[in-house]
Amino acid sequence: MKPLKVALLGCGVVGSQVIRLLHEQRDDLAARVGAPLELAGVAVRRLGRKRDVEVDPGLLTTDAESLVTRDDVDIVVEVIGGIEPARSLITAALNRGKSVVTANKALLAEDGASLYEAARSGSGDLYFEASVAGAIPLLRPLRESLAGDRVNRVLGIVNGTTNYILDKMDSTGASFTDALEEAQTLGYAEADPTADVEGFDAAAKAAILAGLAFHSRVTADQVHREGITEITATDVASAKAMGYVIKLLAICARSDDGRSIGVRVHPAMIPRSHPLAGVREAYNAVFVEAESAGQLMFYGKGAGGAPTASAVLGDLVAVGRNRLAGARGPEESTYASLRVHPMGETVTRCHVALDVADKPGVLARVAELFAKHDVSIQTVRQEGHGDDAQLVIVTHRASDAALSATMEGLRELDIVRAIASVMRVEGDE
Amino acid sequence: MKPLKVALLGCGVVGSQVIRLLHEQRDDLAARVGAPLELAGVAVRRLGRKRDVEVDPGLLTTDAESLVTRDDVDIVVEVIGGIEPARSLITAALNRGKSVVTANKALLAEDGASLYEAARSGSGDLYFEASVAGAIPLLRPLRESLAGDRVNRVLGIVNGTTNYILDKMDSTGASFTDALEEAQTLGYAEADPTADVEGFDAAAKAAILAGLAFHSRVTADQVHREGITEITATDVASAKAMGYVIKLLAICARSDDGRSIGVRVHPAMIPRSHPLAGVREAYNAVFVEAESAGQLMFYGKGAGGAPTASAVLGDLVAVGRNRLAGARGPEESTYASLRVHPMGETVTRCHVALDVADKPGVLARVAELFAKHDVSIQTVRQEGHGDDAQLVIVTHRASDAALSATMEGLRELDIVRAIASVMRVEGDE
Ligand SMILES: NC(=O)c1ccc[n+]([C@@H]2O[C@H](COP(=O)([O-])OP(=O)(O)OC[C@H]3O[C@@H](n4cnc5c(N)ncnc54)[C@H](OP(=O)(O)O)[C@@H]3O)[C@@H](O)[C@H]2O)c1
Ligand SMILES: NC(=O)c1ccc[n+]([C@@H]2O[C@H](COP(=O)([O-])OP(=O)(O)OC[C@H]3O[C@@H](n4cnc5c(N)ncnc54)[C@H](OP(=O)(O)O)[C@@H]3O)[C@@H](O)[C@H]2O)c1
Repeated sequence: MKPLKVALLGCGVVGSQVIRLLHEQRDDLAARVGAPLELAGVAVRRLGRKRDVEVDPGLLTTDAESLVTRDDVDIVVEVIGGIEPARSLITAALNRGKSVVTANKALLAEDGASLYEAARSGSGDLYFEASVAGAIPLLRPLRESLAGDRVNRVLGIVNGTTNYILDKMDSTGASFTDALEEAQTLGYAEADPTADVEGFDAAAKAAILAGLAFHSRVTADQVHREGITEITATDVASAKAMGYVIKLLAICARSDDGRSIGVRVHPAMIPRSHPLAGVREAYNAVFVEAESAGQLMFYGKGAGGAPTASAVLGDLVAVGRNRLAGARGPEESTYASLRVHPMGETVTRCHVALDVADKPGVLARVAELFAKHDVSIQTVRQEGHGDDAQLVIVTHRASDAALSATMEGLRELDIVRAIASVMRVEGDE
Repeated sequence: MKPLKVALLGCGVVGSQVIRLLHEQRDDLAARVGAPLELAGVAVRRLGRKRDVEVDPGLLTTDAESLVTRDDVDIVVEVIGGIEPARSLITAALNRGKSVVTANKALLAEDGASLYEAARSGSGDLYFEASVAGAIPLLRPLRESLAGDRVNRVLGIVNGTTNYILDKMDSTGASFTDALEEAQTLGYAEADPTADVEGFDAAAKAAILAGLAFHSRVTADQVHREGITEITATDVASAKAMGYVIKLLAICARSDDGRSIGVRVHPAMIPRSHPLAGVREAYNAVFVEAESAGQLMFYGKGAGGAPTASAVLGDLVAVGRNRLAGARGPEESTYASLRVHPMGETVTRCHVALDVADKPGVLARVAELFAKHDVSIQTVRQEGHGDDAQLVIVTHRASDAALSATMEGLRELDIVRAIASVMRVEGDE
């Protein structure tokens, strides 16, 4: 059987594992695809760099442009990352009718539409299971298994670095800085951790998930994004004392009227009894709620060379089979075109700790302010006395705009000395 | 766009929900498939029966044979269940080039090969996501997402009825009989619960999972099967006292040398810290361990009309898209043809409680017997004194044959008054 030729762009953490698996699983892959998968070339930046895998020097090139347009190449695997040159290379390949497998969440979330368009015009496939939650099969279930259902919510931990940091803060009481440092030492966080700790990585994944779940086009800049850099050991400890744990969540949800969607990434308190609370270290887990299927959970390794390469190889097999059969996988599905509403319209709940003066009437005035903004209170607890008096309030569901306005109002209230902490609460409606 | 015509066989728990969803999601389904899905007819046994959904009387028929071979029918959905007439109907449909979606685990596990063959000869699709773990996307991830990886083990709770019963026994101390009765009252167990409590249902699912995971042909009769009817409240309580919980597990695992597989369904003790221990009520959850992906878990509703119909509809969309594109989904993949080894070759661990005479030398003689069979002991604990003395032993990994021989030997040992309980232990190697 004539082999399918694969051009690999990038040979770093993920790329080197793709090469290893192509080699180790050669016979199995050939049997599963129906033809051998053969490396046509490997594009890198620095030819001489030491790699985690042995690569035939004759395959290495710095000329990615020529590689992706070579006539003998059937499939291009892009694991360079970033916007350029990844976008131009993928587009060039798709325009020439090649199929593309990519793990590039940043590019997909910024400009997935143009890639889909190129795939369509060239009649090739665009697959990207590895771009969200690494090894966890999540995109294929969303776009295929649940294609007959109505997804209402996707909620999950999709960034391993921040989960590692928050888990350490929770289990050891460490500060954010110390936990980050440990994550860097162990290779869970990069030297420049911005993309992870500021939520950019999770936001890109949220955009991809929302697009698939709601059959609408969603880009990263439509995702409300807050990172975890301002979370203190005190926040973590007081969440713990109340039976909660703080996680960085990606949440894509249909509005109550079903006509728009909210897509957001922010830290939130979830009850310790919630299955996501038990997701430790750098693991990922995603809940999907669909009308008929009910609640589904997917759990596993969200990153790392081998797990991510596993997802890439799964796509490679699918794309390879499609090429042999002259078929194509599902195209972009955006027929629903739901509006992405701003954060203010999102309905959520809030946990607030207020440093207050310990005198009669304080609770009444605070409660009055919440009522004025139509935010109803679920529980309120007074802690400490005198100068240490704190009111700890958990609200019922309200629009984020109303909750923000309430916080503004609290800041102006003379009896409130300070807002010690504010955090959204998820997972226990 | 010309509609795709769907013949529905069966309009019971699952079938009626399929009709509801075809109706409620009509526009979404049409957009996702690329053409409307239209009911061509609904075959049932009793025309006059009251149904959970409104069905156009003009569509109902008792003549399933004619329905599946009608020229205008594109896709047949089989939700009758059982071997016949389901097999003949599906085969007739596939032979005529129609695609089939089925939830029929019993038939697939008994004779999947002949159905695949019919699909192949007719060039139609055979999809069956709903046959295992209801709404949980599991088969598609196994046969597509993990197609580039090497699966080593699939371990899970795939029968909701038995999980409900065991969970009640664990949480309330109820006997098997009482818990079963409650499950029947609540509709979680059928009037004749044999298929569930004797493990037949789980065994069929294990056969399907093993076939996909290991690219080999596995039938239900190759699955070692033990049910839960003999589990006593005492077994459950003593597992609990030791930090374990008893679950009915389906386990498909590659042997240590990678050259054969073991497929089995039996109750086992798992540590309470294991994620499967937290699976309550009638939920299902499945672990998949693959070489590169690591450990993945899938969790959700394993049965029920709507969840199962969700999986059926997902397959319908896939099959519909394939027909419009003139494409076909993945065929049967059995190239690996791994041998299914007998239970005796399976490597497992064991928990044994022995009623023993309380005198010096008892432990030595028991230990000697284990050693004679090459079974090494991980922990041993003496409980009680005099006539109540019990030795509680947990072994290291050993072949099931060696463990069985050890139990035989214990039965013949004069100092052992009785084997109070024997249970395999999983999930904490
Ligand atoms: N790492 C993970 O756990 C993970 C998980 C999920 C998704 N992803 C995604 O996978 C992609 C790759 O990640 P990674 O961690 O493997 O990155 P990486 O280790 O930094 O590797 C990047 C590779 O791309 C090559 N490269 C950079 N610029 C290039 C250019 N202009 N032309 C040709 N090659 C170029 C580099 O060449 P040199 O080796 O010569 O420098 C390197 O081999 C990213 O999109 C990332 O978001 C990664
Ligand atoms: N129920 C679940 O939660 C679940 C979950 C996963 C998979 N499944 C699978 O789904 C399938 C259907 O299960 P179910 O619970 O929906 O069964 P069910 O409620 O017993 O329904 C069976 C249907 O088949 C019809 N039928 C029986 N014999 C027939 C025949 N000879 N010709 C035409 N129609 C016939 C019955 O007609 P009448 O209505 O006229 O009697 C009934 O409508 C089974 O394979 C089962 O294993 C079920």
